Amino acid sequence: MSSLKEIGERQLIKNIKKVLRPATDVRGTDDDAAVLKADGDVVVCSDVVTFDRHMPKGMTYEQFGWTAAAVNFSDIAAMGARPAGLIISLAMPDDMDENDLYDIVSGIDQCAEFCNTRVIGGDTKPGPGVISCTALGRMEGYGPMMRSGANPGDVVAITGSLGGPAAGFLAVENGIDAEDAIFSLMTPVPLVNEGMELCRCGKVTSCIDLSDGLSTAANTICEQSRCGMEIVWEFLPVSPDVDDVSIATGKSEEDMVLNWGGEYELMFTFPKEEIETLQKTGLFFSIIGHITNDDGAYLLRDDNKRRLDYGSY
Amino acid sequence: MSSLKEIGERQLIKNIKKVLRPATDVRGTDDDAAVLKADGDVVVCSDVVTFDRHMPKGMTYEQFGWTAAAVNFSDIAAMGARPAGLIISLAMPDDMDENDLYDIVSGIDQCAEFCNTRVIGGDTKPGPGVISCTALGRMEGYGPMMRSGANPGDVVAITGSLGGPAAGFLAVENGIDAEDAIFSLMTPVPLVNEGMELCRCGKVTSCIDLSDGLSTAANTICEQSRCGMEIVWEFLPVSPDVDDVSIATGKSEEDMVLNWGGEYELMFTFPKEEIETLQKTGLFFSIIGHITNDDGAYLLRDDNKRRLDYGSY
Repeated sequence: MSSLKEIGERQLIKNIKKVLRPATDVRGTDDDAAVLKADGDVVVCSDVVTFDRHMPKGMTYEQFGWTAAAVNFSDIAAMGARPAGLIISLAMPDDMDENDLYDIVSGIDQCAEFCNTRVIGGDTKPGPGVISCTALGRMEGYGPMMRSGANPGDVVAITGSLGGPAAGFLAVENGIDAEDAIFSLMTPVPLVNEGMELCRCGKVTSCIDLSDGLSTAANTICEQSRCGMEIVWEFLPVSPDVDDVSIATGKSEEDMVLNWGGEYELMFTFPKEEIETLQKTGLFFSIIGHITNDDGAYLLRDDNKRRLDYGSY
Repeated sequence: MSSLKEIGERQLIKNIKKVLRPATDVRGTDDDAAVLKADGDVVVCSDVVTFDRHMPKGMTYEQFGWTAAAVNFSDIAAMGARPAGLIISLAMPDDMDENDLYDIVSGIDQCAEFCNTRVIGGDTKPGPGVISCTALGRMEGYGPMMRSGANPGDVVAITGSLGGPAAGFLAVENGIDAEDAIFSLMTPVPLVNEGMELCRCGKVTSCIDLSDGLSTAANTICEQSRCGMEIVWEFLPVSPDVDDVSIATGKSEEDMVLNWGGEYELMFTFPKEEIETLQKTGLFFSIIGHITNDDGAYLLRDDNKRRLDYGSY
């Protein structure tokens, strides 16, 4: 058990490679750049997670690594691309125990495996506790789902249910037993298969993940598509633990469902006459509202209509 | 003049976009992922720079941004790809002045412009002073130059001269006037055109940039190509200020030339009978040694032959 400084960067990279499943179909994994075979559109996204901001109390290093990968694969999923690889850049404290680093890398690799892909390159150096991942995906001839394609009259739908990670966070903070919610916080699932299905059905007009929360996602679609959105509170599927945690902590259920981030469900829109096509995909989804000629997102609840602001996450 | 916290992330992203030249030929710049048209191999690399480690005394925020982009484009150059875009992830302190952030972004954009490409996506969030960039390149039908292709008998060459950034660093630390050396430290030039020329001539067997120093580059080629290398000290082109700075500071010239990083010249190998083809490219380069059947890199100086270790950069 040595610190990262004692081991040195070159040896660390060798050790990290032993933790990872080997990338068999990509050249350049021993170079500073990876070479990806591509025939058509390639989707690329890159996001940074930090110990300070993205490692809630109770999260293991393995889960932190998983999360660092998941936030990127979720963006690939929202486009509808098939994951094609992950590049990782680690900037970790010199005095960190080497095994903690291997746990992070193992978590990253497990998430890549879940997404049917591999780590194809990366680097490690001393730093303040930051992981930057770059996820790659191939469109395989399909058009990417953007945030800018929603049209008035379209239906708004989401996969899965809402508020789980928020409830999980509050449960950990307050020592409440809420296993499912805590799991959803600690192991965010990037919906890559769901994204591919939605994209390939050809009828989805826009898509975004909920990593910054429902309100922010709704406003982003409105801004990029230059439209409005009405969401009906009663239509929103709420995760099972949210109610209990709300009662136990006095925190607003509505706030947990609308304004917290850390959700990785997909929000998407499609013309309402295409509902059968969407149902035929076999995906579970809930219709939560529709697109209007207005601008900005609104919530309908108990016969009131109020503006939804961007969340603060 | 506000701090980043006062402005908020969404407004910051809007302001940053005003600093950047718009990306006209790429979809997805308002999404979390960018979509790149590709027809053949795509090269991707990602690297993190931090205030602590990569911002030497005297470096401006603009130069720091340039550097963050340059380290990535240099990896693209070493492969021989044509730059196709840059994705930036900023994790900056909440109390940072907004103008400093725009200076960073402007430096990034200027480096992208130097490389004939654009910023095609990115994100900003609070963090410890870290920039992660992902550079993309297209091979356009040419085979990428790897680190693994050097063969015994090949000639070893480098573009440009050595030791400038090391001399620049020591000059700043010790208040020595060495304008060119300091400039080479503060504004590393990614040799993308040179990399493309080398790749397209079809005769280069391996290539690497010197960002971790000559010794490390030489050992990396040896390790990846399973060969040895002999470098002749007298053949090494030394930057003009190195001698003066060495005398003024008492620091070893050999150490500055061999073991410091921050150089962005390219080291490459080719069969010696192809020297004319290489000369016809019009590139300026110096032959510094050759590839052997041995393993590891060696320096020949004054009739002595000694092992070159990996540098410590």
